[in-house]
Amino acid sequence: MGDFTDKLRPADPQGPSILAQERAGSNLNVDQLANHLLSRNDFLQRQKRILSILETIPILCKKNQLNMARPDRYHLGLARAKMLRRLSIEHGWDRDDYLMADYLMDEMGPYALQATMFATSIREQSNEQQKAYWLPKVENWEIIGCYGQTELGHGSNVKGIECEARWDPNTKEFIIHSPTITASKWWNGSLGRTANHAIVVAQLFLPERGPATSTKDSDGADKNTPRYRSYGPHQFIIQIRDMKTHQPLDGIVIGDIGPKYGYPAMDNGYMLFNHFRVPHSALLAGYSGVDSESWMYIKPKNPAVVYGSLTFVRAQIVMNARLVLARAVTIAVRYLSIRRQFADRDSKDPTNAPEQAVLNYPTVQIRILPLLATTFALHYTGEAMYKLYYGTREAIETSGDFSRLAEMHAASSGLKSLCTTLAADGIETCRRAMGGHGFGGGSGVIALNNEYLSKPTVEGDNWMITQQTAAYLIKRMAKVASNPGIKPTDTVDVQFQEFLQSPTTTNDDDKLGKNNNVRRRAGFGILGDEMELVKAFQHRASYLSYQAYHARVLEKRSWTDMMISLHRLSHAHSESLLVSNLHRAVSDDAGSADDDTSIPLDKPTLQVMRTLFRLFALFTLDASASEFLVSGAISLDTLQAVMPTVQNLMASIRPHAVRLVDAWSVPDYLLESALGNYDGDMYNRLFQKAHKENPLNRVTFNPDWRTEEIVMGEGEENARRRLESLALGTTGHEQSGVVRAKL
Amino acid sequence: MGDFTDKLRPADPQGPSILAQERAGSNLNVDQLANHLLSRNDFLQRQKRILSILETIPILCKKNQLNMARPDRYHLGLARAKMLRRLSIEHGWDRDDYLMADYLMDEMGPYALQATMFATSIREQSNEQQKAYWLPKVENWEIIGCYGQTELGHGSNVKGIECEARWDPNTKEFIIHSPTITASKWWNGSLGRTANHAIVVAQLFLPERGPATSTKDSDGADKNTPRYRSYGPHQFIIQIRDMKTHQPLDGIVIGDIGPKYGYPAMDNGYMLFNHFRVPHSALLAGYSGVDSESWMYIKPKNPAVVYGSLTFVRAQIVMNARLVLARAVTIAVRYLSIRRQFADRDSKDPTNAPEQAVLNYPTVQIRILPLLATTFALHYTGEAMYKLYYGTREAIETSGDFSRLAEMHAASSGLKSLCTTLAADGIETCRRAMGGHGFGGGSGVIALNNEYLSKPTVEGDNWMITQQTAAYLIKRMAKVASNPGIKPTDTVDVQFQEFLQSPTTTNDDDKLGKNNNVRRRAGFGILGDEMELVKAFQHRASYLSYQAYHARVLEKRSWTDMMISLHRLSHAHSESLLVSNLHRAVSDDAGSADDDTSIPLDKPTLQVMRTLFRLFALFTLDASASEFLVSGAISLDTLQAVMPTVQNLMASIRPHAVRLVDAWSVPDYLLESALGNYDGDMYNRLFQKAHKENPLNRVTFNPDWRTEEIVMGEGEENARRRLESLALGTTGHEQSGVVRAKL
Repeated sequence: MGDFTDKLRPADPQGPSILAQERAGSNLNVDQLANHLLSRNDFLQRQKRILSILETIPILCKKNQLNMARPDRYHLGLARAKMLRRLSIEHGWDRDDYLMADYLMDEMGPYALQATMFATSIREQSNEQQKAYWLPKVENWEIIGCYGQTELGHGSNVKGIECEARWDPNTKEFIIHSPTITASKWWNGSLGRTANHAIVVAQLFLPERGPATSTKDSDGADKNTPRYRSYGPHQFIIQIRDMKTHQPLDGIVIGDIGPKYGYPAMDNGYMLFNHFRVPHSALLAGYSGVDSESWMYIKPKNPAVVYGSLTFVRAQIVMNARLVLARAVTIAVRYLSIRRQFADRDSKDPTNAPEQAVLNYPTVQIRILPLLATTFALHYTGEAMYKLYYGTREAIETSGDFSRLAEMHAASSGLKSLCTTLAADGIETCRRAMGGHGFGGGSGVIALNNEYLSKPTVEGDNWMITQQTAAYLIKRMAKVASNPGIKPTDTVDVQFQEFLQSPTTTNDDDKLGKNNNVRRRAGFGILGDEMELVKAFQHRASYLSYQAYHARVLEKRSWTDMMISLHRLSHAHSESLLVSNLHRAVSDDAGSADDDTSIPLDKPTLQVMRTLFRLFALFTLDASASEFLVSGAISLDTLQAVMPTVQNLMASIRPHAVRLVDAWSVPDYLLESALGNYDGDMYNRLFQKAHKENPLNRVTFNPDWRTEEIVMGEGEENARRRLESLALGTTGHEQSGVVRAKL
Repeated sequence: MGDFTDKLRPADPQGPSILAQERAGSNLNVDQLANHLLSRNDFLQRQKRILSILETIPILCKKNQLNMARPDRYHLGLARAKMLRRLSIEHGWDRDDYLMADYLMDEMGPYALQATMFATSIREQSNEQQKAYWLPKVENWEIIGCYGQTELGHGSNVKGIECEARWDPNTKEFIIHSPTITASKWWNGSLGRTANHAIVVAQLFLPERGPATSTKDSDGADKNTPRYRSYGPHQFIIQIRDMKTHQPLDGIVIGDIGPKYGYPAMDNGYMLFNHFRVPHSALLAGYSGVDSESWMYIKPKNPAVVYGSLTFVRAQIVMNARLVLARAVTIAVRYLSIRRQFADRDSKDPTNAPEQAVLNYPTVQIRILPLLATTFALHYTGEAMYKLYYGTREAIETSGDFSRLAEMHAASSGLKSLCTTLAADGIETCRRAMGGHGFGGGSGVIALNNEYLSKPTVEGDNWMITQQTAAYLIKRMAKVASNPGIKPTDTVDVQFQEFLQSPTTTNDDDKLGKNNNVRRRAGFGILGDEMELVKAFQHRASYLSYQAYHARVLEKRSWTDMMISLHRLSHAHSESLLVSNLHRAVSDDAGSADDDTSIPLDKPTLQVMRTLFRLFALFTLDASASEFLVSGAISLDTLQAVMPTVQNLMASIRPHAVRLVDAWSVPDYLLESALGNYDGDMYNRLFQKAHKENPLNRVTFNPDWRTEEIVMGEGEENARRRLESLALGTTGHEQSGVVRAKL
């Protein structure tokens, strides 16, 4: 049904012609850069192939998602998860294809735990017998699994979980029990409505040999039970729902925890057990176990393996951060190149001067272009983590060499904290820079923001895990400081040795030499020399490491008291890693390293990348400038030249901005953004979304306050009943969904 | 229907007893502080009275909101808006009562423009005849109105709007027309589905006297039209929908723009006109107008009035920021006091040591306690804005004295930018500090975040309006610098004079005296003396003002090039205002000022407030430390003592944290947070929300990927049809809402 708006078009200049001009104004080699960044594992070809399949399937269409109720998002999410599973069989997808489909679909759905934590736990923690029994069922998806570790009262501190597994020597069963409300499993993905099996982490209690006492167990039910001893958290595999009716088994209460900031399609769940009995074989017994005859505990062989798997998850989060941030930056750069606002205040004829592209304003550039540079910084550090991870794993598997595990764990913890903070904050910075349209549903940034805001918390809270990085750095500094001639076994050792050998300043206006506040050197030439920039970051991280070492090891300061500076130390070190890795990748001899298999870049492109390196490093330095000043890495005069230099660097990046985001190759289907589409036709798309696709516009309302009628013609009584039950949540999403569907 | 979880309770210690202990551990006088903060206009009593009415009404219950589809939120929002209107008549509410109900209801709804921009425009921009005609209709709510200024392609730059109003001298009508898609009105609240009248801002075009030419108008339809001249944006009052059918009038296309980040209950709309004719009386003609006989433009009398109303809106936003941030901080402080995690790493028996309250960790304190201090900083600056606004308005109204308008406009712009950024970022900081539960729907922070994230953009983008503050400061500095003995007419004049008279440093390690980088003084004693802290903030703001003045006035630098430093200048000045106002309120002679009518605080409470002042100021200083260093306000040695001092201040605030948030008196109904309730019974509430109130748990699903069935028993065909239309948005919210309601 047409109307007069059908023949209207946006005011000139048109978005597509603006983007065409932007693209024509840069000599950056987009295809080459895209291949350089994304050719591992055939990423780009795979993306194209999988995308062409997904785009044709109605239930994978995303355009109505922001209109849906959260319960409906789960309904749809389950249908989509099933669809991906069927597609993967139909098209013979391998694991990478499936992951690509999942990435493009961009929804944390109800099957997300099956091939990850559920399968991984069985694979890594089971004995051979358990693997033989469970793995085929998991791999054929005969059972649907989840992973139940965190509880209502207990998150990061796994040792604090309350769920109990007590060995009953009489029946040779474990009794799984939740003694309190806070012992309820909580947050566990796929548990709420989907899974029929779960890995459950519970405190293992074994009876002590000896005479029975009158010790009560936690709910006081039994008397004269044996005295139990705790052996800490262990993993159990447990069937939780009936395979036919899908109802929770007797003695188990399960449900979905309700709406969250993001993850609407995921049924994060809760679960409590009431003296629920499971067989001896439920305890995953690959590394530790219980002898069913002697009740004796069998100690774990090598705890480092568990440690490695957590590290891998963090490393993966670091590797993924670049493409998440790239999405937000792609949308922002395209929109802000097209959007016009205000004429130049100094123009001679301000009334008639044309409005400027918003991206031309330095106050917009300073928010977006450093983030554009950050996508590349995240990329090369992700690559470095990738190499470190697979290198370390190979060393462990082929020669039992665990020596680099500690370095990798430290790097992955600090980087997970820093990189997810950069990406999460960066998405919101992009959104705000887009003004009103950034707040609108057409931006494509809302869902991205809501989903990604989980990342600063999951897999180790960003303010907590930095302690692990700091502890590692203190340990290395202690080693190097106490033995300056030691043969370096780790990258930071060399850096610390350099720091300790560097001269102290003499022309400082502060008092020198008092305890640990020695400034070792005043002034790297950060403005002209790229390597000096790298060294300034290393110097500041070394300085903070030395201070922390001094406070903890020499002054015996309390760990808790030091936490704020430990967090800052971890960030300083992680920023140094980002800067070093980016520098290595874009320096003159980039690509010449033996282990670098990525496609090399031509001179003009490499030149732009080097400008991005300087932009990233100087912007990052400015944000923590006082640490660089205090550590003596730079002087006040140098600092005052930083922002003008940043502004010049941004001006030289500006013409390449559109091509640079093009290189990230984020398809329109994934962007799901009227503002960020490749073609730049944003105003037509925004209008189309509102005028043709918004379901609210199909209803005529009664705006008169004197009547309770809401929809024109429904009458007051209907409206009242309908809206009360909506507000109270008493109707609308019960089993009668079926009834509604049958209408 | 009970189950075994009914008799479970959370593990000890229980939340309520923890909060009771926290409250017992502080001597802060909560009632007194609450009255001190919130007694203007009988706020606390009014809150109690209105709350008792709202809490009993089913459709005002908020517990199911996060489960609802966006279209349903509008349905409910309209019903609620009508309810508030009816309640206000039933209970004889005055304007403040109504605003209180709106504040407690906490939903931007479809009537929000009626008493604000719609009524205000008519009141302020109409002539007497127009007022007499329209105001009774508006005040009796016979018509429902909205305000249509921004367009799809045009936001902040009002001069750029495209919608046209051309005077047709033959029929004596204005022809309202949208020549392009980008000319579509966009974002206008209440327009989408609700309003039947609108204030429309359009470019006024009047024909020039003289022979007709062949100039085309913008859509090329007519030839031989007269030559038109533009007179800029003007306001028109226009009926847009039929009063009976509520359908848009012929020649108008209207709709709701679709889902946004927040404001789900508000129908932000779009609207286009196709040569739509309105009478001469549609142009609001209080200040300017068109003579219908001569076609002559009548020039506006006093543009400053318009200017004052924008300033008022910004001042209001500043005044509201404190209670918004207080909500997030209240939730965070209560939750983090109750939540336990990890034992002290240095404890002698870490395995058996009790877990610590999360708020005891410095890395948590550093995120929450400075924000707690910020709520009070925002409060006293809001109060200062309040006095400045009403003082300025009185001066204008009683004696035509516009002299303080410029200062107020500058203050309100910079403060709007800073305060909304502090509040918006602060909410998210609180949310993240709460870890997993902060991401959950029980936190109460999700909706708060989503709504408030509009504030950095609306009423002047936070990165744009800072220019207005900076321009003002440059102007004042130019005046003072060129005439050092001038009699101060403004608060900053004195500050600038002091700055210019202060000695320059001599013992700096950087080169001095080169152009504008002179450091005037090295080192205020910020650690021991509160007034020195205030002076350090003023000094830094003066220094940046001088630099900006030097660059712009003396070096003639381009405005656009300077934008980043102008933004920083505005923030520096606004932070200085926050610090000064907080200091004035809590210093020894607080309450002795003539104009201070607030209830005085007793000594112990005032002592805590002074600690909060130092915490706020030092934390804020540390975040921009390099500016204080560069300006010479502090030395490196002083800076290194700042964070240890901040940590000590936080330790002394910690015991008062719960009582301090209690003083903000945010009722549980407004918090809508399982984590933040006054009684601290958070785990039971979280569990209740999930286990008893989550509608998704009423449905049993079919998790088997081999079938397309989603709800157990609905069959594959039903599921397929249902989910396809859900994904494509083709069903579910059309007029058949009526049909569904009738079931």
